[in-house]
Amino acid sequence: MLLPELAIRIGAEPCPAGADIDITDVCSLTDANPAAVTYASAEKYLGALRVTQAGAVILTPALAAEAPCPCLLVEHPTLAFARAVELLRPRIPAPAGRHPSAVIAASALIHPSASIGALCVIEEGVRIEAGVEIGPQCLIQRDSLIGAETRLVAAVTVCERTIIGKRVLLHPGAVIGREGFGFARDGERWVRVPQIGRVRLGDDVEVGTNSAVDRGAIGETIVGDGVKIDNLIQIGHNVEVGDNTAMAACSGISGSTRIGKGCTIAGAVGMAGHLEIADNVHFTGMAMVTRSLTEPGTYSSGIPAMPSADWRRNVARFRHLDAMAKRLRRLEVRLAELEKAQREQAD
Amino acid sequence: MLLPELAIRIGAEPCPAGADIDITDVCSLTDANPAAVTYASAEKYLGALRVTQAGAVILTPALAAEAPCPCLLVEHPTLAFARAVELLRPRIPAPAGRHPSAVIAASALIHPSASIGALCVIEEGVRIEAGVEIGPQCLIQRDSLIGAETRLVAAVTVCERTIIGKRVLLHPGAVIGREGFGFARDGERWVRVPQIGRVRLGDDVEVGTNSAVDRGAIGETIVGDGVKIDNLIQIGHNVEVGDNTAMAACSGISGSTRIGKGCTIAGAVGMAGHLEIADNVHFTGMAMVTRSLTEPGTYSSGIPAMPSADWRRNVARFRHLDAMAKRLRRLEVRLAELEKAQREQAD
Amino acid sequence: MLLPELAIRIGAEPCPAGADIDITDVCSLTDANPAAVTYASAEKYLGALRVTQAGAVILTPALAAEAPCPCLLVEHPTLAFARAVELLRPRIPAPAGRHPSAVIAASALIHPSASIGALCVIEEGVRIEAGVEIGPQCLIQRDSLIGAETRLVAAVTVCERTIIGKRVLLHPGAVIGREGFGFARDGERWVRVPQIGRVRLGDDVEVGTNSAVDRGAIGETIVGDGVKIDNLIQIGHNVEVGDNTAMAACSGISGSTRIGKGCTIAGAVGMAGHLEIADNVHFTGMAMVTRSLTEPGTYSSGIPAMPSADWRRNVARFRHLDAMAKRLRRLEVRLAELEKAQREQAD
Repeated sequence: MLLPELAIRIGAEPCPAGADIDITDVCSLTDANPAAVTYASAEKYLGALRVTQAGAVILTPALAAEAPCPCLLVEHPTLAFARAVELLRPRIPAPAGRHPSAVIAASALIHPSASIGALCVIEEGVRIEAGVEIGPQCLIQRDSLIGAETRLVAAVTVCERTIIGKRVLLHPGAVIGREGFGFARDGERWVRVPQIGRVRLGDDVEVGTNSAVDRGAIGETIVGDGVKIDNLIQIGHNVEVGDNTAMAACSGISGSTRIGKGCTIAGAVGMAGHLEIADNVHFTGMAMVTRSLTEPGTYSSGIPAMPSADWRRNVARFRHLDAMAKRLRRLEVRLAELEKAQREQAD
Repeated sequence: MLLPELAIRIGAEPCPAGADIDITDVCSLTDANPAAVTYASAEKYLGALRVTQAGAVILTPALAAEAPCPCLLVEHPTLAFARAVELLRPRIPAPAGRHPSAVIAASALIHPSASIGALCVIEEGVRIEAGVEIGPQCLIQRDSLIGAETRLVAAVTVCERTIIGKRVLLHPGAVIGREGFGFARDGERWVRVPQIGRVRLGDDVEVGTNSAVDRGAIGETIVGDGVKIDNLIQIGHNVEVGDNTAMAACSGISGSTRIGKGCTIAGAVGMAGHLEIADNVHFTGMAMVTRSLTEPGTYSSGIPAMPSADWRRNVARFRHLDAMAKRLRRLEVRLAELEKAQREQAD
Repeated sequence: MLLPELAIRIGAEPCPAGADIDITDVCSLTDANPAAVTYASAEKYLGALRVTQAGAVILTPALAAEAPCPCLLVEHPTLAFARAVELLRPRIPAPAGRHPSAVIAASALIHPSASIGALCVIEEGVRIEAGVEIGPQCLIQRDSLIGAETRLVAAVTVCERTIIGKRVLLHPGAVIGREGFGFARDGERWVRVPQIGRVRLGDDVEVGTNSAVDRGAIGETIVGDGVKIDNLIQIGHNVEVGDNTAMAACSGISGSTRIGKGCTIAGAVGMAGHLEIADNVHFTGMAMVTRSLTEPGTYSSGIPAMPSADWRRNVARFRHLDAMAKRLRRLEVRLAELEKAQREQAD
């Protein structure tokens, strides 16, 4: 693809305008591939940009002077690069139809344009819409709905009665809709409270590898449109996640917590249950969220790592921090008295 | 089912005694379903209780005056509701027999009342007792035992020589009995110490989605009767978990730690290895457990999230907490000297 | 196997030299098995060593006087014991060949000595080298390479274009090479940046149950030779892990972070993205790593659990730690002034 055509298709302005090199691939700034386009999304990549051997580079006008090759000017380089990757490295869709090794219930309604991979199990009452791709070894349990153009990469488990929107992407090992963790005490024993709700995933949702979205105890666990869930994440029963919220790997959201729209949750964040988190709240990594938050903004917790000898000393003091605070207060009082006495003496 | 019959079957007292409405379903307090029974387990639900449109409500006598509908009076509403769900929404058991797509070793002993789902693999020497349900895509490796009425929902992996009790529930993606993480150093390299033990799960155990229980290095990893393990939990080799202990999602227990009976472990708790935790110890979420605990009680750790600007300032101080404590001590000494001098002057 | 022969094969010196008891098994110090060999790796096991009923014990000369049975003297008991286990409890390799239920693409190149288990899926363009064991229900996606003598225990997913070295061990539920978590903002929405790189695992790597190694966005995620990864671990896109680094369960490494050689990472450690960690850095459990580290050594973070009442008081003070530090500084200034005034008065 010639540079001017690529520019048009990703919504960029070529610079210099006349450059018509042939671009056949994408690469990173540090790969040496003169037939590929790369991108520079921030000033911190200036060093790599100046010596890149890519054939062209997608960047903002502010960085263009630094590029040693033709540029494609855009406002949002990462977004434009995503489009370039889709053009130059298009994903090959799985062929429509059912692999003969799949086990498919007679009552399942599967659109003829859908693809069902090897060794899948599709149970009674499932409905699979147009353009869906179910990769190998997936399981869709009874009465679930898979919306159009959704893709289950492989080895995904969708439990009964789950409702999945359109253009959803589920990664290997994801489990959507298992019975949540609900028990009643009976003396010393725990008695399971049957979990009879379901999960509803909106459109354009993504759920990563080995993540779990539990179904509602009664009612629904709801993941809004455009929500992106990374690997190894736990979403408890009756959680609600607002549209376009993104959460990074290893986080866990306890039951019945409601998270707003447009939030970002970094890795390994833990949230207690029954919280209300406002729209546009952002958590840094390993944050421990124990209270509802009504104000947008960025929240943090945790103690960053330090040399273990220092850490041991500081932690030992933390165990007595309340006592330290009280001693500090007493010192203030005593010092004030002494100052007063001294002033009186001076008078 | 008429209300009086339901009351008898869940052990409740109907109030008023004569109410004979027909109850066909269960619902939450906030659903509007006059043919359904709901429950109110605590005072914090009083607001929802007062306006519920359910047909009947299970609650304690203390809350009964607030209900706008007939009541079923019990001491433990959640437990009674669990029974109501089982009556009104009974789970349909899988049919006995072997799905033709399952791969079953000739030497496996499978009770005729057991159900083996599609695309399961049952290896040599496995024994499966009466009433067991093995859902689709499960794997039971050689010489394992699955106790009566146990249910593997789907896509569960049981590694060799595992012993699983009766009425156990294993969720999709759970892996029971893999070789644990045991190595010896050989210069800079790690040499695997073959893990030749096994896992023993008691009766009424539950293991959640994508959780792992590693087998003993030598000897057994033991999960006691009635233990409930949520999703994405790691149980290391040779861990022992006492009866009726429950642990919430994302927790990890390092090798050879012994946890007592009746403990509760909230989400994302981490425990070091080779610890002894007494009976009836409770941990709050994200607790970091580095020492053995001999006393029952509730233990916590971690710093709850706060606005990031505040957090940065406080964390910076934490790095010098030991120095702060020493400065505080010096101030106390100096102030005491000054006070003494001042007293002497006053005398 | 007679003790002298076992001694030769594991590189130990028998003591007394003439003991020729028959050893047929391995056991722990606390098992009572006079036909088995055990080991004692550290002084903390002296109590168990003194009363062991094992037939022989592997230990260092320093501990030999305490053993109530014949000894096998070595410098590294755990390493020697690992060899003894391999001799006395040899693993039975899976038979070469393809299980008839496996779904194997015509273009896959599979060495005749390799074993492909039941219900596996091997896609187009895959190459599987000599002596490989692919356990039941594994999936190898297109154009991946599995190096000689590697073993996929069961239910492992290897995504497209992954390169796996020799003698690698992958545990059930591990997912190698899924598309990583990469998005560009488009207003309020997230647009996926297609992840077109791959994963490269070195020789002798191990990846535990339900762990995920994401493929590079562009370029490679690289796991060096001899790296050991435990269960439920997340390795983000474009991470690089140096040779012989080991990480315990429940840890997460964010994208593009580079970890050196010979590091040890205890359980539930979280690392931010784009960090550089030097060789021979060690992290204790639950460490929160937010900065690059250029010096080898041991690093820690986190607040160990304490009784909840104490914890609540101390955490409340932590929220005002910066203010406390400022009050302390003011006290120091005021006290110094007072001391000065007192000195002047005294003069």
